Amino acid sequence: MDGKKDRVLIIGATGYLGKRMVKASIALGHPTFILYRPEIVSDVGKVQMLIGFKMQGAILLQGSFDDQESLVSALKQVDVVVSVVAGNNTLLEQLKLVEAMKQVTTIKRFLPSEFGMDADRMGHAIPPGDMVFINKRIIRRAIEKANIPYTYVSANCCAGIFLSGLAQLENFMPRTDHVKIYGNGDKKCVWVDEDDMAMYTMMTVDDPRTLNKILYLRPPSNILTQMEVVQIWEKLIGKELKKIFLTQEEWLASMDDLTPYIQVALTHLYQIFYNGDLEFEAEGPHGVDSNDLYPDFKYVTAEEFLKRYL
Amino acid sequence: MDGKKDRVLIIGATGYLGKRMVKASIALGHPTFILYRPEIVSDVGKVQMLIGFKMQGAILLQGSFDDQESLVSALKQVDVVVSVVAGNNTLLEQLKLVEAMKQVTTIKRFLPSEFGMDADRMGHAIPPGDMVFINKRIIRRAIEKANIPYTYVSANCCAGIFLSGLAQLENFMPRTDHVKIYGNGDKKCVWVDEDDMAMYTMMTVDDPRTLNKILYLRPPSNILTQMEVVQIWEKLIGKELKKIFLTQEEWLASMDDLTPYIQVALTHLYQIFYNGDLEFEAEGPHGVDSNDLYPDFKYVTAEEFLKRYL
Repeated sequence: MDGKKDRVLIIGATGYLGKRMVKASIALGHPTFILYRPEIVSDVGKVQMLIGFKMQGAILLQGSFDDQESLVSALKQVDVVVSVVAGNNTLLEQLKLVEAMKQVTTIKRFLPSEFGMDADRMGHAIPPGDMVFINKRIIRRAIEKANIPYTYVSANCCAGIFLSGLAQLENFMPRTDHVKIYGNGDKKCVWVDEDDMAMYTMMTVDDPRTLNKILYLRPPSNILTQMEVVQIWEKLIGKELKKIFLTQEEWLASMDDLTPYIQVALTHLYQIFYNGDLEFEAEGPHGVDSNDLYPDFKYVTAEEFLKRYL
Repeated sequence: MDGKKDRVLIIGATGYLGKRMVKASIALGHPTFILYRPEIVSDVGKVQMLIGFKMQGAILLQGSFDDQESLVSALKQVDVVVSVVAGNNTLLEQLKLVEAMKQVTTIKRFLPSEFGMDADRMGHAIPPGDMVFINKRIIRRAIEKANIPYTYVSANCCAGIFLSGLAQLENFMPRTDHVKIYGNGDKKCVWVDEDDMAMYTMMTVDDPRTLNKILYLRPPSNILTQMEVVQIWEKLIGKELKKIFLTQEEWLASMDDLTPYIQVALTHLYQIFYNGDLEFEAEGPHGVDSNDLYPDFKYVTAEEFLKRYL
């Protein structure tokens, strides 16, 4: 350790998780680089976000997946790459990034766009939600084949998306009247505040304990079933919600009228809340639990999070 | 003065200017109320913005223009209303707000959604950009007829939209190669940082000097022609840009292939940079100049603003 923090390049910095990654990277003292596409100049909101990052100390680099030279040039200036690009097609475009890393050879760690469920445990996922996992696995295998040092951050469920609405589709504020319960609401989920996701991620980029590992974010107080989460909310508002219990068949049958994007969300909720796909311990040769590595980190608990919505 | 700050209701708080109004209102110590539509619960970004406002101390009130009772209920809790709704149809929906204010009768000041050029000076504006001014005038006349105390803030040109790209359409970062110049580039424009717009607005909500007046935001260093702005940028980058001079006829002819939204922007640029519609002194019985009222306010100068983009 020479006392200098690793230089971090963030790709997808103006996105939902990206803006939080920038904040966390700067907060932890990493020299922070941001790749932005030339087309972004016509998006006034994104330009202003970029300029805001710059005013906080980030360094802006123009480039895109369509311009291999720009990727190589950016990679030469940094130690670590954190990708938070979203969308199925964009996920696969990370293959171009892997190619550029093979060429540069000096990247000390690559964190590809993950930050959800562990793709390698989701081989059984149903369509259309399975595509996300399939594409993430393709990227993982390309990284491993190229011998690029990596960490896969399995961040589980974004609190602002899942917890905010008590796991209801397209509803990001908790209701005070009724709630749909998946099955008996008894499958464990892991609810993680997005700012915490970013802090865990940036704490781990130079942590030798997560080199070539999967880091599972598992704040212990936030490993809760849907029913437990509903009960926290009921206690906060001092009122019981009406529960509408949905069988697996009813839930999956509701898919037909939805947009493709929402269908993906519906199947992911199925995996978690009916199939119990987050009910495992973070063990094995490749998995590490955030709570073993960073037990003192003051994460936002589910109750603290829900209090904001009172 | 009882030492208590006026309570401010902001309508359109999650929008481009709205989020800045919230920040300024809280910064100046106003008890700050935010009206949010029930439909917003399905917009994860806007919900998170609202929760962020709440965590900074704002009070969230559910309501909408379609629910007169919700408007009346919200108005009863505040002294001042600042509307920053956008879009032509939404501008006219403010008539419902005027109706609710007539019913409540205790509103001490209404600042309708203005924050651009002075609509009453724009009777000659060409279509389709004229619709914005027509609708703003309809709202002004309804306010005056109902004897609601008002201030119209004529904020002139948003720096993040106009200055950031040297007044080029759909380009919000200044180029380093070439720039299109309107006519000779010699018409004065007034370029105002958006955060400053919000601060001026919140400074004026309880200022007796702007009661029933038009407040023109005119930071003296920022009353500059397009050519003067280009020269500031050229000095900053140490390089001359290639200038492409466009006649009025060429500029208006380029409208045909544009979307309706961009056509509006094009005609507004025409008004300012060919017709010189911002070349007037803020005098007369109804107009007051921000620099006469708030000469000590440290606004962002055009040069400081452009430095951020280096």
